[in-house]
Amino acid sequence: MAHRVWNGQAQMPSVMDSQIEIVKGEGSYVWDAQGKKYFDGSASLWYANIGHGRTELAEAAYKQMLELETYHTFGRFINEPARTLADRLAAMSPIENPKVIFNSGGSDAIDVACKLARRYWQAVGETERTVIVSRDTSYHGLHAFGTAIAGLEPNREGYGTESLVPDTVRVSANDPARLEEQILAIGPQRIAAFVAEPVIGAGGVIGPADGYFETVQRLAKEHGFLFIADEVITGFGRTGKMFASERYSLDPDIHTMAKGLTSGYAPLGGIQIAERVWEPFFTGGEEAPAFRHGVTYSGHATACAVAHANLDVLEREDLVDRAGKLEDVLATELDTLVGVDGIAEVRSRAGFLGAVKFTEDLVSETIVRRAAERGVILRALPDNALQISPPFVAEPEDLALTVSAIRESVAEG
Amino acid sequence: MAHRVWNGQAQMPSVMDSQIEIVKGEGSYVWDAQGKKYFDGSASLWYANIGHGRTELAEAAYKQMLELETYHTFGRFINEPARTLADRLAAMSPIENPKVIFNSGGSDAIDVACKLARRYWQAVGETERTVIVSRDTSYHGLHAFGTAIAGLEPNREGYGTESLVPDTVRVSANDPARLEEQILAIGPQRIAAFVAEPVIGAGGVIGPADGYFETVQRLAKEHGFLFIADEVITGFGRTGKMFASERYSLDPDIHTMAKGLTSGYAPLGGIQIAERVWEPFFTGGEEAPAFRHGVTYSGHATACAVAHANLDVLEREDLVDRAGKLEDVLATELDTLVGVDGIAEVRSRAGFLGAVKFTEDLVSETIVRRAAERGVILRALPDNALQISPPFVAEPEDLALTVSAIRESVAEG
Repeated sequence: MAHRVWNGQAQMPSVMDSQIEIVKGEGSYVWDAQGKKYFDGSASLWYANIGHGRTELAEAAYKQMLELETYHTFGRFINEPARTLADRLAAMSPIENPKVIFNSGGSDAIDVACKLARRYWQAVGETERTVIVSRDTSYHGLHAFGTAIAGLEPNREGYGTESLVPDTVRVSANDPARLEEQILAIGPQRIAAFVAEPVIGAGGVIGPADGYFETVQRLAKEHGFLFIADEVITGFGRTGKMFASERYSLDPDIHTMAKGLTSGYAPLGGIQIAERVWEPFFTGGEEAPAFRHGVTYSGHATACAVAHANLDVLEREDLVDRAGKLEDVLATELDTLVGVDGIAEVRSRAGFLGAVKFTEDLVSETIVRRAAERGVILRALPDNALQISPPFVAEPEDLALTVSAIRESVAEG
Repeated sequence: MAHRVWNGQAQMPSVMDSQIEIVKGEGSYVWDAQGKKYFDGSASLWYANIGHGRTELAEAAYKQMLELETYHTFGRFINEPARTLADRLAAMSPIENPKVIFNSGGSDAIDVACKLARRYWQAVGETERTVIVSRDTSYHGLHAFGTAIAGLEPNREGYGTESLVPDTVRVSANDPARLEEQILAIGPQRIAAFVAEPVIGAGGVIGPADGYFETVQRLAKEHGFLFIADEVITGFGRTGKMFASERYSLDPDIHTMAKGLTSGYAPLGGIQIAERVWEPFFTGGEEAPAFRHGVTYSGHATACAVAHANLDVLEREDLVDRAGKLEDVLATELDTLVGVDGIAEVRSRAGFLGAVKFTEDLVSETIVRRAAERGVILRALPDNALQISPPFVAEPEDLALTVSAIRESVAEG
């Protein structure tokens, strides 16, 4: 089934000859064009948190579109769903009294977070602070800035210069002592911001080592640079708290959000910005420095209305709490894979998500393909592992099915 | 009405004390929270082409969301609305046999177009081709790449390095002889791509000078670099043809699209890619070079379903043809402003859009504000001009009203 859509390495021959066309979704399940049912073990791309096919969200979109599909939020203009969503997010934010910049997804959010960090230091006169530091094996989307700061090397490479955006440095993902050495070697007075996923996602589903973020935050405080928490994956409940910043006691200056903000029903992302960062731009009247930024669909009215409905469901059904409980169920199931022939490592207990890494004689893509035949959708990660990140509405038996599918797929050898 | 949304220079004090909250839209009109009605003379941000409040689009979104709000299109996965939309776009494309990469808007589209241009030359071994050339006063969105290639200097500046992404050069916007000198001075063998809006948008609504694009295309052919047509504004009918590439006989290697693709009802953008560019990535089996790109909502099923419904309306109501006819009506109306005291220049006849530039004793923001009081929404552009780009469903009397509002606002002095 060759077609014209080119996306996400979709030109690979192994992909092109065996496409799966998803046509229907309900709760934790999706169906393909042949009517085969799958448990959505990856929540699509880590985002279908409240599950598929929610009538309430479709109705929210419909109602808003009939009234006002959207109107831009540049200059003097605002719309009600964007305004009230910003207030609602501020009230639940790990950042006190934030401003909010909306856009259309996680890559957008990282791009504007890094731009704002760079712009901030120029605005306050510390002009040599241009370096964005990120973690080895991190993933921050694939716009130009996200590409440049990627800790996953293959995503950074192949553009003809060392870094698509220069002044980027990768540091140890989880070793606090080594991190400190590296930060000092960069010259901390040159650092604009340190960017991190609280739980490394595409890089292997890896929770923070003890002391890692304490060190990050101590260094940020000592040396003055900004700390950007990339909560595109972890935000809105994935770690059993509304934000991983809460779980891991993080105090970010900028906080990204996307995926779980709408559970994927509408493209929406954004950042929350601490007063320290926004204050210079709102001070000095007409003399205030400008941050010339904005994308067409910043504050898209229908996307914001969908986000409201998604948050309504999340709150009404206590799904964040449920994710916290399912974390234990998933971890207990995954524990049964430890020591199984072909399985090198099992990662869990950093939220309602996990990874299984295979020994060298197995290929994660093969296991993922076999699991799909068994009715479970998972995703291969770059380190010969696979990702498990189910919808929060999954049932314990779905998680048992998932782990069985992995076990059986591995047993095929 | 201070609020938390920070977007599009919205921190400016002149903006914060006089916000307009749009709550309703129908056809060419929108209403604010106080019930005041406006003619949407800018089609929001150049995108509300089929007009606001279309039940048909709301129904398309609702129906798709009930079935499958979306599923990702990475690796093996595809969904029906994305697959069929790619085919439909390919059939109307100025590019023969294109591949399509979807994302969520115009800034995304430019980012991936530039990344792909850079990646292409590395993949085919012409590794010194890293320079992206763009036009003075051009606007290509505000992600990192769009920021770096902006011809509007204030959008590029303030990030601490000469260019956020290096290896970018701006050239004469409309002087073919000067352009040729500049291209030769850069070293054409270093150029990855030349990027241009067929009609410069935010930079002043300026159509191409005679011979300009002929020169661009001759130079691209002679020296081998790629030509990227940024049709985010002009695509889907704004110039009276489906694409400005048709009107101005352009033959792009990559073609961006956003805004008019959904008329703003859902965040969706993308690029179309000529065979020359995609072919190396689809050749050589497992040995083919990879283009590691993809955003979460690439091929968002609901956004693609909305785009289908938008194209249905555009075709059924012959709105592209209507835009072509309204171009003349608008131009004739705008002609009556030529020579008026306070008006320095009137720009029209490059599609159904125009600009009015003021003399130094007037400030475009002031005129825009007065026009809003008269019930007409327009937008100030950086060169002390204002933008007119109405929905295609506007009536001739709306255009007369718009020009009257400008005339009266100027007459206030």
